[in-house]
Amino acid sequence: MIEIPPKIRQCVREIRVGRNVFGGGDFVWIAGPCAVEDGESFRRIVGELGKLGVTFCRGGLFKPRSSPYAFQGLRAEGVELVRRAKEEFHFSFVTEVLDEASLRVLLPVTDMIQIGSRNCLNYELLKLAGATGKVVLLKRGFAVTMAEFLGAAEYLAASGAREIILCERGIRTVTEVTRFTLDVGAIAWLKRHVPCPVIADPSHAAGDAELVAPLLLAAHAAGADGAIVEVSQCPEETRCDAKQQLDLAAFAQMKRQMD
Amino acid sequence: MIEIPPKIRQCVREIRVGRNVFGGGDFVWIAGPCAVEDGESFRRIVGELGKLGVTFCRGGLFKPRSSPYAFQGLRAEGVELVRRAKEEFHFSFVTEVLDEASLRVLLPVTDMIQIGSRNCLNYELLKLAGATGKVVLLKRGFAVTMAEFLGAAEYLAASGAREIILCERGIRTVTEVTRFTLDVGAIAWLKRHVPCPVIADPSHAAGDAELVAPLLLAAHAAGADGAIVEVSQCPEETRCDAKQQLDLAAFAQMKRQMD
Amino acid sequence: MIEIPPKIRQCVREIRVGRNVFGGGDFVWIAGPCAVEDGESFRRIVGELGKLGVTFCRGGLFKPRSSPYAFQGLRAEGVELVRRAKEEFHFSFVTEVLDEASLRVLLPVTDMIQIGSRNCLNYELLKLAGATGKVVLLKRGFAVTMAEFLGAAEYLAASGAREIILCERGIRTVTEVTRFTLDVGAIAWLKRHVPCPVIADPSHAAGDAELVAPLLLAAHAAGADGAIVEVSQCPEETRCDAKQQLDLAAFAQMKRQMD
Amino acid sequence: MIEIPPKIRQCVREIRVGRNVFGGGDFVWIAGPCAVEDGESFRRIVGELGKLGVTFCRGGLFKPRSSPYAFQGLRAEGVELVRRAKEEFHFSFVTEVLDEASLRVLLPVTDMIQIGSRNCLNYELLKLAGATGKVVLLKRGFAVTMAEFLGAAEYLAASGAREIILCERGIRTVTEVTRFTLDVGAIAWLKRHVPCPVIADPSHAAGDAELVAPLLLAAHAAGADGAIVEVSQCPEETRCDAKQQLDLAAFAQMKRQMD
Repeated sequence: MIEIPPKIRQCVREIRVGRNVFGGGDFVWIAGPCAVEDGESFRRIVGELGKLGVTFCRGGLFKPRSSPYAFQGLRAEGVELVRRAKEEFHFSFVTEVLDEASLRVLLPVTDMIQIGSRNCLNYELLKLAGATGKVVLLKRGFAVTMAEFLGAAEYLAASGAREIILCERGIRTVTEVTRFTLDVGAIAWLKRHVPCPVIADPSHAAGDAELVAPLLLAAHAAGADGAIVEVSQCPEETRCDAKQQLDLAAFAQMKRQMD
Repeated sequence: MIEIPPKIRQCVREIRVGRNVFGGGDFVWIAGPCAVEDGESFRRIVGELGKLGVTFCRGGLFKPRSSPYAFQGLRAEGVELVRRAKEEFHFSFVTEVLDEASLRVLLPVTDMIQIGSRNCLNYELLKLAGATGKVVLLKRGFAVTMAEFLGAAEYLAASGAREIILCERGIRTVTEVTRFTLDVGAIAWLKRHVPCPVIADPSHAAGDAELVAPLLLAAHAAGADGAIVEVSQCPEETRCDAKQQLDLAAFAQMKRQMD
Repeated sequence: MIEIPPKIRQCVREIRVGRNVFGGGDFVWIAGPCAVEDGESFRRIVGELGKLGVTFCRGGLFKPRSSPYAFQGLRAEGVELVRRAKEEFHFSFVTEVLDEASLRVLLPVTDMIQIGSRNCLNYELLKLAGATGKVVLLKRGFAVTMAEFLGAAEYLAASGAREIILCERGIRTVTEVTRFTLDVGAIAWLKRHVPCPVIADPSHAAGDAELVAPLLLAAHAAGADGAIVEVSQCPEETRCDAKQQLDLAAFAQMKRQMD
Repeated sequence: MIEIPPKIRQCVREIRVGRNVFGGGDFVWIAGPCAVEDGESFRRIVGELGKLGVTFCRGGLFKPRSSPYAFQGLRAEGVELVRRAKEEFHFSFVTEVLDEASLRVLLPVTDMIQIGSRNCLNYELLKLAGATGKVVLLKRGFAVTMAEFLGAAEYLAASGAREIILCERGIRTVTEVTRFTLDVGAIAWLKRHVPCPVIADPSHAAGDAELVAPLLLAAHAAGADGAIVEVSQCPEETRCDAKQQLDLAAFAQMKRQMD
């Protein structure tokens, strides 16, 4: 019914980023704070995550926030903090780009380019990201159909990208007990119809720390190749999305359930 | 945030129906055709399911169809067919009731009363079903919130039922590759907040046989206590919902993946 | 694209109920309290509405409420109150039926049978209502497509009804400032594709008295043949849906805007 | 319930662009083709629209299309065509910007900056657009709540804009007979709670020429200050969104209904 766009059909099934391979059978963990807030707290959390076996970290530098008065991320100032932490702890890093300027600033420090939900259909940004030669992580928008999602991914591919990872992060529905509804059927369908690896973001879908683990387990069971999870040392003190962040103990327990 | 209604809080955590216990740790399989179409085909499918270890069967007698000209089920005429098949194969049986008349007809043959999605908020029917003393399986409606779902379940409880099983069967969303979106977050949330066992209906959510297994696995991973699955011997020949029915081989393979 | 069901195509374009004609060019006003709460308050409100030219009144006797502990309506006890008020003030009356029992109780007093949103796909009830010979008002469910809505209406028609009025009352969407989203496009589409008159329920869509008037005006502009509006003398004292009820002054002002 | 952001509260109620005033009581018509396709066809359509009294024209130069292989607009090459048509026919012009590059290219020729639905939450673009000193037209995203919509508008305001026009263009819902569902309740709510003028885009909501007029009339009735409508000389030959474009005769008839 949905025609898979031509260049998506030519995309790569197994994508290596540092020590992790997406789509190769092992479940890939990406974890880290919602935002990089300062050098020391970031150093500590990625250090702790490393001890738990996590070699791929996340952390927002350019944050798209619902209010212009909310913390917008450390932006360019955070790049050096991340660079130093990577040097010390040897992890791969993914962070969101918002436009050409942030893309240029982040390219040297990020190992994978994240296009966030709000920019899922921002085609000009997709063209730029697709042309970098980097692996791109494309998050599905709040109300984006599979046809539109693949159209967006094809923008990446048409610009040259063949290493594209799709991320299901929940859609807007009537359900009021989660922030979004994790669409495990979309994960299962994508795994059957497109070559690209598919990961899940259970943190944004849940919007609630206690529901992150079951959503992650469900995504895995539906066929997800990995997950991107928000973890922080003091969830209650973080400057964004505090409610949905796991502390290290909860993350460690969830990871043990899976491994 | 959502207040759990008072009598739901007093509901039973483990519910035995025949040889199956919902909420007791073992995953309960309910399987069978969308509709009971004739005695011989029903006999054969439940016989085959029995060989696969399924001791709880489903099969619609009163079918709520989108068109008045579609097959409406064998109705009262099918009761005797089911009774005989139960006698021969010793399975528990669940089927949908639509109103007081069908409830009366079905009570002698059904071991669990199913309230379908379209009647999730049909409070008069809930009052009747709750007063029978039978276990009730309440399916969530297409666009029903958790608050409304628990309100509906409380109607059952307020009429006397304490053995209530909740069923997540997918909600209406923007996703076009599945018929409905299975809300695994709702399953996880319900398991944390109400005592009632929760099962999933991956068949109606998927609307497509190839997606039934991943949805069932996801539901299980999210905490579901069981599943109700449409299985028929010749999916392409069935008179309703043909596309989403598993054949016996596909069902057996899925069951092995889980057991 | 959507095939109009055969008996819907034979339905009547102009439907007279008492002094009102739906589909005849004049906008029909149906107004009254959410629920009939007692004889005196009902007498007073329908009396006042009559002075404003309203000759078709609404008032719930059997109320489908989200909680079993909320006021369920006066039920059979209210019939005599309504009968007496009709005798005194000579208005037509519409009220919701929930099942066969309430249908039987209400038939002598109601001039039009209302099927509520929650029972839009309750096909057994539709069969009964369609066979009464009375005009039926079918409200669209929270997440019901046009194809399903017409399928439901066809159940009425297949049981004999040819005088069917369709009611758009808002659907569930992401919008948080109204209780439901009034689907004016559905009104416009229905008016172009089916003969049945179409009315709107701006009160339930708005969920907020201050938005009732603009929604009603929008529905009229989109082609609605009338509206059913909740009006009460003391909105803040009513026992259900208080927030969305207009007081008489607000209703009178809105009606003047239209007439 | 929803707090209106501080700078939105200081926005201007009446916004003059050329000969049109939004929010001043007169309904403002913006019309034109989905995309500017070539100089001659654009010249002809704006000339014809001028004869119908339309002094504000639309026409996409940078088109965000679902497929990278679809016509992406004339882009920078179209600017001179528009400039010449404006010189000849003296209309105001609005067109969509996609990023900083297109913004720079379009600033000299556009009298109002349009942020499209897909970029409604593209905050970096909003910051740039808000800082230009131009009037900004912000279209609501497919699944954007009022709180998010006002948050996005506040990005414009926080960057200096005080002349912001909000555009309701339909949201994603279960309804299958329109492309999107025009949210007239959102229009009514915005008009009561924020100073900014509000217009509607009935063309994208309808997705079908025959439903454009009733949606426009409904938006007007709900309080919209104007509308932006797709009109082309040969709808069936246009290179994008052909199905929803009005021809001149249909547009003229609709305009007469309103004026």
